[in-house]
Amino acid sequence: MTKIDDATIRFAHRLADASGEVIRPYFRQRIDVIDKGKIMEGALVFDPVTAADRGAEAALRQIITAERPEDGILGEEFGELAGHSGFRWVLDPVDGTRAFINGRHEWGSLIALEKDGAPALGIIDQPVLRERFIGVNGIAELHAGGSVERLRVRPCADISEAILCATHPYAYFDAGERAAFRKLAQSVRMSRFGGDCYLFGILAMGFADLVVESHLHRWDVAALIPVVKGAGGIITNWQGRDCSDGGQVVAAGDARVHEAALHILNDRHAD
Amino acid sequence: MTKIDDATIRFAHRLADASGEVIRPYFRQRIDVIDKGKIMEGALVFDPVTAADRGAEAALRQIITAERPEDGILGEEFGELAGHSGFRWVLDPVDGTRAFINGRHEWGSLIALEKDGAPALGIIDQPVLRERFIGVNGIAELHAGGSVERLRVRPCADISEAILCATHPYAYFDAGERAAFRKLAQSVRMSRFGGDCYLFGILAMGFADLVVESHLHRWDVAALIPVVKGAGGIITNWQGRDCSDGGQVVAAGDARVHEAALHILNDRHAD
Repeated sequence: MTKIDDATIRFAHRLADASGEVIRPYFRQRIDVIDKGKIMEGALVFDPVTAADRGAEAALRQIITAERPEDGILGEEFGELAGHSGFRWVLDPVDGTRAFINGRHEWGSLIALEKDGAPALGIIDQPVLRERFIGVNGIAELHAGGSVERLRVRPCADISEAILCATHPYAYFDAGERAAFRKLAQSVRMSRFGGDCYLFGILAMGFADLVVESHLHRWDVAALIPVVKGAGGIITNWQGRDCSDGGQVVAAGDARVHEAALHILNDRHAD
Repeated sequence: MTKIDDATIRFAHRLADASGEVIRPYFRQRIDVIDKGKIMEGALVFDPVTAADRGAEAALRQIITAERPEDGILGEEFGELAGHSGFRWVLDPVDGTRAFINGRHEWGSLIALEKDGAPALGIIDQPVLRERFIGVNGIAELHAGGSVERLRVRPCADISEAILCATHPYAYFDAGERAAFRKLAQSVRMSRFGGDCYLFGILAMGFADLVVESHLHRWDVAALIPVVKGAGGIITNWQGRDCSDGGQVVAAGDARVHEAALHILNDRHAD
């Protein structure tokens, strides 16, 4: 594992601080629902998420290019900037747009640092709750309320006892995935929906046993991996392989639950 | 509408303060998932929700019986206590048990005051976020961060533009309700799940257009009614009638969306 030095970790925290400063003022800005006809007619639509997302990413890119000009950048809003250091910052300042416009707290700013293509540091920052999950150098922490807490997933012996989380029961799954997910949901103790990146923080804290998503982008998942792994969890694609390029993701706190989930998700012949 | 005097409103706030004091220490207490076999064998299972819920309700009942001995009480945990004043306090200190054990913030303490059987004051208190929604005397407010904000639902001209929320896509609906809800979810712009009582605060703030639930108890719904109505919204059962006794509930910010939702929810012959 690539060791990330303290100066770089401090720099990552500064990026998260800067992102939160930009985003917080846009949260819960009142907008009326305007019907599509009016949008088509060219009325100005106030879009706080886009403004927050683009504003924050622009701020982060400015800090990175000024202070670490050799590093690469990949961001959801402004694409890729090649680097020469072997490091690349992967940015998604508002992961969970739909939660954001719904006035809810379960979205976050994702900041990852890749070394030679592998996620080596990940931050899931919730700037309104001021909760920051960080995974780096094999450990995961929650920074909140002025204190730092080491995170550990919890054991869960059997999938029938698991709490399963996903952002939505069907909106982000294709038809085959939906059938597989439904079967998984019938195998667990309890399913809960909503959450986006925040779910992986919940898993790292030991309050969920399984998170299943699909159709993620690299910037949606790169930051999650060091947090989940640092807390002792497992995060792969639905085939049990590396998921750092996005797509289907399954994260578990306990290897037994992860294995059972993969089995169910891939058992396309089952009822 | 029954006018609730300032002393009674202050008393209701004191109840919410007391409830939060009891509940906060139990939030995010780490527990491992214990399989049912072990529970059957008599192992002690730490249950922070029950402890929080019972502890808070006991504290509230003590305050009410000491200071307003003529009022009745109905609580989820300890049942009914008859009163003689025409007022009855309806209590559910942890509404959203599943969110609570999942380490998430979208649950709340519900405190309602009924006058002659009709909800006249309602509080949805989120003691960890320190957000308190209160509806009384025809207005709704959010008390948070030391300030008070008047709440207003937002307009939404057409159901196709609505954000629909429900606690779960199917767990709390029976088969017929599930089919009706699915049809409704296909008619809106976006559906989001999770939330329990907190969803009605989101609606009152103007960040959702429609909340649909079923199988609620009186203590789940009594507090919601003054908050939604005070913010200018509509809250009824699925037949468009009074829902203060619980059961099926549909709340909307805009009458046009409410009417369209009732139509879809009751159109059992449709595709």
